[in-house]
Amino acid sequence: MFKTRLNELIQKKKTLLCVGLDTDLEKIPNFLLSEVDPLYIFNQAVIEATHDYAVAFKLNLAFYESLGLPGWELLERTLEAIPKDVLLIADAKRGDIENTGKKYAEAYFKTYAFDAATVSPYMGTDSVTPFLEYEHKGVFILCLTSNAGSMDFQFLKVENEPLYLKVARKALEWNYLYGNCGLVVGGTHPRETKEVRELAPGLPFLVPGVGSQGGNLEQVIKYATDEKGQSTLINASRTILYASAERDFAEAARAQAKHLRDQINLFVSVQKNIDLLNRN
Amino acid sequence: MFKTRLNELIQKKKTLLCVGLDTDLEKIPNFLLSEVDPLYIFNQAVIEATHDYAVAFKLNLAFYESLGLPGWELLERTLEAIPKDVLLIADAKRGDIENTGKKYAEAYFKTYAFDAATVSPYMGTDSVTPFLEYEHKGVFILCLTSNAGSMDFQFLKVENEPLYLKVARKALEWNYLYGNCGLVVGGTHPRETKEVRELAPGLPFLVPGVGSQGGNLEQVIKYATDEKGQSTLINASRTILYASAERDFAEAARAQAKHLRDQINLFVSVQKNIDLLNRN
Repeated sequence: MFKTRLNELIQKKKTLLCVGLDTDLEKIPNFLLSEVDPLYIFNQAVIEATHDYAVAFKLNLAFYESLGLPGWELLERTLEAIPKDVLLIADAKRGDIENTGKKYAEAYFKTYAFDAATVSPYMGTDSVTPFLEYEHKGVFILCLTSNAGSMDFQFLKVENEPLYLKVARKALEWNYLYGNCGLVVGGTHPRETKEVRELAPGLPFLVPGVGSQGGNLEQVIKYATDEKGQSTLINASRTILYASAERDFAEAARAQAKHLRDQINLFVSVQKNIDLLNRN
Repeated sequence: MFKTRLNELIQKKKTLLCVGLDTDLEKIPNFLLSEVDPLYIFNQAVIEATHDYAVAFKLNLAFYESLGLPGWELLERTLEAIPKDVLLIADAKRGDIENTGKKYAEAYFKTYAFDAATVSPYMGTDSVTPFLEYEHKGVFILCLTSNAGSMDFQFLKVENEPLYLKVARKALEWNYLYGNCGLVVGGTHPRETKEVRELAPGLPFLVPGVGSQGGNLEQVIKYATDEKGQSTLINASRTILYASAERDFAEAARAQAKHLRDQINLFVSVQKNIDLLNRN
């Protein structure tokens, strides 16, 4: 089961960090551009430098799809370069009618061996079930996203509560089927993260938005993690990938990943101590 | 501008039909499976047989993505096989934060030369603007989808109206920017289509769901088309592609496309006559 695998790996590697491989030709160090295969060299170096500190790598498919065929080739080779002790997340945010959803689920869980994927909830149950039916895979439903546009629909009041809570409730229903649902909850909304965690204490959370997007890490950890300080993936992409634009980019990425891992663990242990004090 | 191009082509070719190339190895005629390149042979034959009757071809990317690299190769070659007198729609239903949305928009509008794409609204304005910024391209926002799961969120009441109308209102705002927004409105919801058309009389509608999904074509035409009987794409995929499982599949697809085109035009002219009578 995905959640069990996630938490076992979190315990073993002592990290909640998820490294987002949003690799962008415009942002990688300039000196790499003279190489035949700059994006792969970059990915491979970052993977090697950071996987010790990561429980998962998240590949946002847009960065690969935008390159056409060479992008999908890069995706395949990047997946092969990732060691087995890291989970693979397809950040796809797909959602389509059942007949089509099956094809997307097939893409990530059969054609590529991702362990989990992100899915958009707008089209409802039959757009999500094709993913859920891969019961050993994780399905992270977009609940509350980290961007400014999250205000447009996700905060609209529906029967006295915001839409993102309706989505979280529906995800709880979906989770009854195979126990493999999770939620995407943006790190830029700590107060709302608390609400969602209270509503869904057992679901894994994938939390983007703590790096370049400016989310407050201490609050995110406090509110997103479950009672054991687990079931949470804290994603950072740009802050790690582009920590240096020079020849030391991989070492800089490693240092940044280690720093984040340590900060996260510090806040987890602080939170555990507070919980302990409150219980006594 | 996309809407002008669409309506000029509708007038010239006298058709609202959009052929959905959701090509599926499990559904194409068996005899093709002994060929080296069955999916491309199938696509090419269907394109040749039906393009006279179509104003657009819609490629649902799931069917290509699920095949991995060969799928994207198939997509590229299929796009090349489509004549210039047909618009190309990427049925992608993507939606992500701005930094990422830019990459998706780049994929469909630069890497591939699609004329329009479908986009999911859940993540709000900054997930849609990267698409809108290609001002000559069309951006169809998922408003009310054709599937059963549309009931889960799209019909939820927000400030006394359903969410899909909130999405339509927001799309009207987005349309102010570059005039290139459209809406996806499922053919299985005729009454709601009427509402959306009244709210957004000027936006192009992309209407799936009249074929295998069972939408009522006469009502769809009545409610989806604008006052000139235009600004609407009626999509059919499986009913055309898989009209025959035998060697005559391309002729059968052509006959089905012609039949649908004629039926649509009949209903458009009936509706125009009714409008005329009502005006006099």
